[in-house]
Amino acid sequence: MIDAGKIYPPEQVILREVGLRDGLQMVKTYPDTTTKKAWIECEYDAGVRHFEVGSFLPKDKYPMFADVVKIIDFIKTLPGAHGAAVTLNKRGIVDALESGVAEISCVISASEEHNQANTHRSRTETLIEIQNLCRMRDVSDHKPLVSVGIAMSFGCSIAGKVDPKSVLQLADQCFAAGADLVSLADTVGYAGPNQVAELTKSMNRLSDGQPFGIHLHDTRGLGIANASAALDEGVRILDAAMGGLGGCPFAPGATGNIVFEDLVFLGQTKGFDTGIHLEKFNDIRHVIQT
Amino acid sequence: MIDAGKIYPPEQVILREVGLRDGLQMVKTYPDTTTKKAWIECEYDAGVRHFEVGSFLPKDKYPMFADVVKIIDFIKTLPGAHGAAVTLNKRGIVDALESGVAEISCVISASEEHNQANTHRSRTETLIEIQNLCRMRDVSDHKPLVSVGIAMSFGCSIAGKVDPKSVLQLADQCFAAGADLVSLADTVGYAGPNQVAELTKSMNRLSDGQPFGIHLHDTRGLGIANASAALDEGVRILDAAMGGLGGCPFAPGATGNIVFEDLVFLGQTKGFDTGIHLEKFNDIRHVIQT
Repeated sequence: MIDAGKIYPPEQVILREVGLRDGLQMVKTYPDTTTKKAWIECEYDAGVRHFEVGSFLPKDKYPMFADVVKIIDFIKTLPGAHGAAVTLNKRGIVDALESGVAEISCVISASEEHNQANTHRSRTETLIEIQNLCRMRDVSDHKPLVSVGIAMSFGCSIAGKVDPKSVLQLADQCFAAGADLVSLADTVGYAGPNQVAELTKSMNRLSDGQPFGIHLHDTRGLGIANASAALDEGVRILDAAMGGLGGCPFAPGATGNIVFEDLVFLGQTKGFDTGIHLEKFNDIRHVIQT
Repeated sequence: MIDAGKIYPPEQVILREVGLRDGLQMVKTYPDTTTKKAWIECEYDAGVRHFEVGSFLPKDKYPMFADVVKIIDFIKTLPGAHGAAVTLNKRGIVDALESGVAEISCVISASEEHNQANTHRSRTETLIEIQNLCRMRDVSDHKPLVSVGIAMSFGCSIAGKVDPKSVLQLADQCFAAGADLVSLADTVGYAGPNQVAELTKSMNRLSDGQPFGIHLHDTRGLGIANASAALDEGVRILDAAMGGLGGCPFAPGATGNIVFEDLVFLGQTKGFDTGIHLEKFNDIRHVIQT
């Protein structure tokens, strides 16, 4: 059984590399398995321990994730490294549980419209799916963590404004369903620092010590400013991608996760020990220049 | 006589386009006078009113600023537009006063080392130069504003750490010398949001209602996060360049002012009326793609 408190110790700032999943989702050319392993290994040497490694999605549509099990197996060989993989349907859940991945991530959208576009389901149906995932996890051998990303938490490119209350309600429902971790995602980069501060402050109260994170995109250039606001409000789990790779297939123009190396530097300026060696990290950026 | 309170009204967020000066300082190819005018005109139409238009520097070394007087004259034709030009020596001051530019900007460095590298003078000598500039301004016909940028206010690429107290002392000395406006410059992008918040808080106390600004670079990706912190602490005058052009010849690697359009969006998310139409602004970015 995976201990959430060990993987996400309270107060420890944890920067999760999501480039291998969110970063590759939109690309036409993608690294082969060997290059992915080199990417992970280089980042691991620089101190990165949390990796989102891919998705369990149909291989014909998402060939960039066809090797997800190989990447999960590789992560297992690195002491202290923690791998997470995304699932969006039952088939994916079964495969993910079978793979022995340490964390299964799923997604629900703050807006009904984006949830339908992204998963062809209502939010209610997705919540039931998350409940099922948690039940299946509970009876599995290795009991991986379950994390839920709430897409469009700060505004939706389809539905427009998103009521913060509905985001908090969804977060509450995800925790109640058995999720170990809930992340607020600014999928399209609509958020500003004040909005991030407000929602994460409320989330801090709601989570009551359970780990929660933030997943920011830099679409409009405010990603790091938003990360700064989140850190100031006590958020300790932040997603980023080396060089700022990424996007969302159902949110046109939503390019780019926040830049991992900038986030490391931000953490340093605030006196946080992220465990990541910035100079080493910067030296390895060549691995994704393929 | 130029009224500082009219050009920089208290509480009004003012975004100054410094691309035509700081943005062009390092480039090998630069726009011709017609293109510069088109750049200004497009930004003016989008609501920009404050422009740093060039430097009074030797034309053989800085040919990109050879047309500075023409640009100053052009700014004068745009109602409500305010032009500033940089001078670094007495010859430049004389030329600037003669040009009728509305604001003369000069630079002093927070570190002795960078001041020597940038201007071949000690800080004490530069302070005397600023005093002289202010005296010459006082006896001039149109009495332009004098602004001083304190380079390396948040750390120096030559000297390393910079004592915030020495920055505040310099700011005090600049105001005492007759400067209308003092800007804190993060010339090499060393600052983090907490550091910006602390120094601007002190600066707010020190300036006692006199306008002061911030000049940020995005070298390490924290520029907009730093701008956010500055706005939160009451800074109302911020420099930026369309698309994030810029650098410093004596600070290797210090590329890029903060992106003007991102700063507009940041201001919007905080509920400030910057007077700038973001969509219009984004539509005109093609003018610098030459």
